[in-house]
Amino acid sequence: MRNPFFENNGPFEINDILDLINIQKTNLNYSGYVKDVKDLVSAEEDCITFYHSKKYKELATNTKARYCITTEILKDNLPSNCKPLIVDNVLIATAKITEKFYPKSTVDNFDQHVSDIEKSIFKDNVVYGKNVLIGENVKIGKNLYIGHNSIIERNVQIGDNCHIGSNSIIRNSLIRNNVNILDNCVIGKKGFGFFPNNSENIRYPHIGIVIIGENSEIGCGATIDRGSMSNTIIGKNAYLDNQVHIAHNVKIGDNSIIAGQVGIAGSTIIGNNVKIGGQAGISGHLRIGNNVEIAGGSGVIKNITDNSKVMGYPAKNIREFLRENK
Amino acid sequence: MRNPFFENNGPFEINDILDLINIQKTNLNYSGYVKDVKDLVSAEEDCITFYHSKKYKELATNTKARYCITTEILKDNLPSNCKPLIVDNVLIATAKITEKFYPKSTVDNFDQHVSDIEKSIFKDNVVYGKNVLIGENVKIGKNLYIGHNSIIERNVQIGDNCHIGSNSIIRNSLIRNNVNILDNCVIGKKGFGFFPNNSENIRYPHIGIVIIGENSEIGCGATIDRGSMSNTIIGKNAYLDNQVHIAHNVKIGDNSIIAGQVGIAGSTIIGNNVKIGGQAGISGHLRIGNNVEIAGGSGVIKNITDNSKVMGYPAKNIREFLRENK
Amino acid sequence: MRNPFFENNGPFEINDILDLINIQKTNLNYSGYVKDVKDLVSAEEDCITFYHSKKYKELATNTKARYCITTEILKDNLPSNCKPLIVDNVLIATAKITEKFYPKSTVDNFDQHVSDIEKSIFKDNVVYGKNVLIGENVKIGKNLYIGHNSIIERNVQIGDNCHIGSNSIIRNSLIRNNVNILDNCVIGKKGFGFFPNNSENIRYPHIGIVIIGENSEIGCGATIDRGSMSNTIIGKNAYLDNQVHIAHNVKIGDNSIIAGQVGIAGSTIIGNNVKIGGQAGISGHLRIGNNVEIAGGSGVIKNITDNSKVMGYPAKNIREFLRENK
Repeated sequence: MRNPFFENNGPFEINDILDLINIQKTNLNYSGYVKDVKDLVSAEEDCITFYHSKKYKELATNTKARYCITTEILKDNLPSNCKPLIVDNVLIATAKITEKFYPKSTVDNFDQHVSDIEKSIFKDNVVYGKNVLIGENVKIGKNLYIGHNSIIERNVQIGDNCHIGSNSIIRNSLIRNNVNILDNCVIGKKGFGFFPNNSENIRYPHIGIVIIGENSEIGCGATIDRGSMSNTIIGKNAYLDNQVHIAHNVKIGDNSIIAGQVGIAGSTIIGNNVKIGGQAGISGHLRIGNNVEIAGGSGVIKNITDNSKVMGYPAKNIREFLRENK
Repeated sequence: MRNPFFENNGPFEINDILDLINIQKTNLNYSGYVKDVKDLVSAEEDCITFYHSKKYKELATNTKARYCITTEILKDNLPSNCKPLIVDNVLIATAKITEKFYPKSTVDNFDQHVSDIEKSIFKDNVVYGKNVLIGENVKIGKNLYIGHNSIIERNVQIGDNCHIGSNSIIRNSLIRNNVNILDNCVIGKKGFGFFPNNSENIRYPHIGIVIIGENSEIGCGATIDRGSMSNTIIGKNAYLDNQVHIAHNVKIGDNSIIAGQVGIAGSTIIGNNVKIGGQAGISGHLRIGNNVEIAGGSGVIKNITDNSKVMGYPAKNIREFLRENK
Repeated sequence: MRNPFFENNGPFEINDILDLINIQKTNLNYSGYVKDVKDLVSAEEDCITFYHSKKYKELATNTKARYCITTEILKDNLPSNCKPLIVDNVLIATAKITEKFYPKSTVDNFDQHVSDIEKSIFKDNVVYGKNVLIGENVKIGKNLYIGHNSIIERNVQIGDNCHIGSNSIIRNSLIRNNVNILDNCVIGKKGFGFFPNNSENIRYPHIGIVIIGENSEIGCGATIDRGSMSNTIIGKNAYLDNQVHIAHNVKIGDNSIIAGQVGIAGSTIIGNNVKIGGQAGISGHLRIGNNVEIAGGSGVIKNITDNSKVMGYPAKNIREFLRENK
């Protein structure tokens, strides 16, 4: 699938890509075009992919990509159809290539190409407040309400029977049916992903989107960042309270209840029917099972299995925590 | 007292209410009109009330209400003037009835009936910024300042000498004299109260308001939710720093000092002269006494008596905590 | 240096100042004018300063100020050129005097003197969204982008190649080159500093500004308060994620990375190359060294030396914390 929202500037000649990441072309004799940059699993034959950690060895051995950015140590895990491109830092090289394909995905400058909704094709289909702005490539279902001063920037699809509050900003997002987004939210901005570098950090492209499932509600002042190479996903019938922060690439299951001021760091995956108390924090790259309950104020730094109830910092079994902390 | 802000669509015939909550009418032979739905204490003779937990037994035995939604087990605590209506889930049945009386209290769609302040009766009495909107049923005292892009939606009363910042939204609130509300706040939205239900949660009505006492200050980015069946109250001369979250039904006493990013969960009652350090969290349904000091970052999960100083998660006596954590 | 942004209403006759803080003039026989109120170090000969804690004894012995507000106990540390003015509460007396010199520094009423950018001198130099407002005494470099509904109030300087998002408010701030400020931020409001007082707190003047170093990025929903007597400073190439709160007088070093929902209390000084995980909190008046790593969710209540890695509440050595909390 082509990226639905970010324009792919490719294909590019492989030798232009080699130049970009400072790989000597002379001995390689590669030629032809590369259509896209994707992860190990979703990359097709005409794509370039990247492999930077042994954790992904099994995925690497099965990739269909023609080229893979990787290291001297990891290159032997790639299949014979996939040519390794050896670099010092896989992620920085991948960021450079992704930015070449998707040049608009590293920054989040405000959308200059919005129009007043009163002058748009939506003026008769939407109930809207004062000073509402709508960007390009926006699709809207039936019975939408948009509050005062809200901005639907480019690359947004909204389903039927949705309510957007006032002073909210949405971009690069797919909102299903019957979703409520309250006031002062920012949905779909790029995540806090970059490569630290003295005097000037290197921004990482964010070509993912935010998807919010049907019947969900997002409280006031929430920030939900879009994904970098994958999407940020809020499940169906998930309710988020005020001032919640959801980082890039996070997935939250169906029927989740997330209380005020909770923060979930990047790439963590949360199951269905999960309840998270106020101000709890969850570290990045974790897996939280189904039917988990996390007490308010907890700090979760490890994976949590299905049906667990945890509390504390670091979070542990709630009965154990309460027994130790009478 | 009639609800000052939410329009009561009643009275309703008792048999229409029985139908709504699926109670067999045939053996009951009730008739007549019900004027309002209220809690056990404030319900008058022509009202319906609800009783769902033994905690409230004493209140139940003294209620004046003619009807009470309750369970088979609890019904015997009601006085002879009050007819029990037996249901499986008292709170869900109560929510349905409350929504019938107050249909606009379950959702917070943006207020479509605002006008530009320049075209309102307030234009000569208020110092206002650009793009300020004012709703219906708004009363404003002397010497009010309202910053740019702020929205005073329906059902707001503001006293004398108040300052509202820019980009703030206020609805269903009573603001006393000499109050400062800074930028980007959302005051008076419905609370995060609902009944979890697979595939589509059931929203709980919020017919309470927010009351902010005189001489108080609310920092930037604060969210203060209105109450469900009671009010959310901020006392006199209470100062809240930036990014504070106050949930529905919370009461905060006079002369309180609440630092940045504090969160207080629903229905907790806090005394006078209380100091709460940054990022502290307080669970719901607690009682915090007068003159209490809660250290920054603490997580309070139990009631706290007057004049205590606490710290930690769970919060305990501050000297004990510091001794144990050298 | 005169304050770049806040207008100094002085000089004032010393006897008017004595009257203001209720000091008997009769035995003193002072006369002449005072130009400014400053801290012990920056006060020049024609200034008044203040000395309220033995911690600052060494600075007090070297002050050049002609007058110093202090106590009976501390007055003997002052040099012979500096006349002590004895009061009960040094900080309240200093607040009163500072407010006399800088009457606009105690409150943050919205800026009434902004114009639509389309009618300003900036309309050809800036790429701007709808409804952008610009205050007086604003200076702007090349290649600035300002998003929809953002307000640049009075007393702001912005360097070259900066991007301001939508719905953000900036005042009393100095923004260097290549800075990104995302959506819904409030930068430069007065800090949460005041003297608690029954029934009506006494506001403390804030005559400092916010300075944001080059190449830095400020996430959505951030609040960065300006300083009281000194400035709030964000270093070069510092990246702050969403919903971060930086209190008044805080200094953050270069190349810092501060994740979502972190809060830093007033007057804390943080070194270079510091990484702070999500939701961590740092108490006020601390010193955090260079190259420090603070794990997400930590609560820091003590100074931290260079190159330390800490975790927990209260934060301690990370290896020790993890060993004790398996």
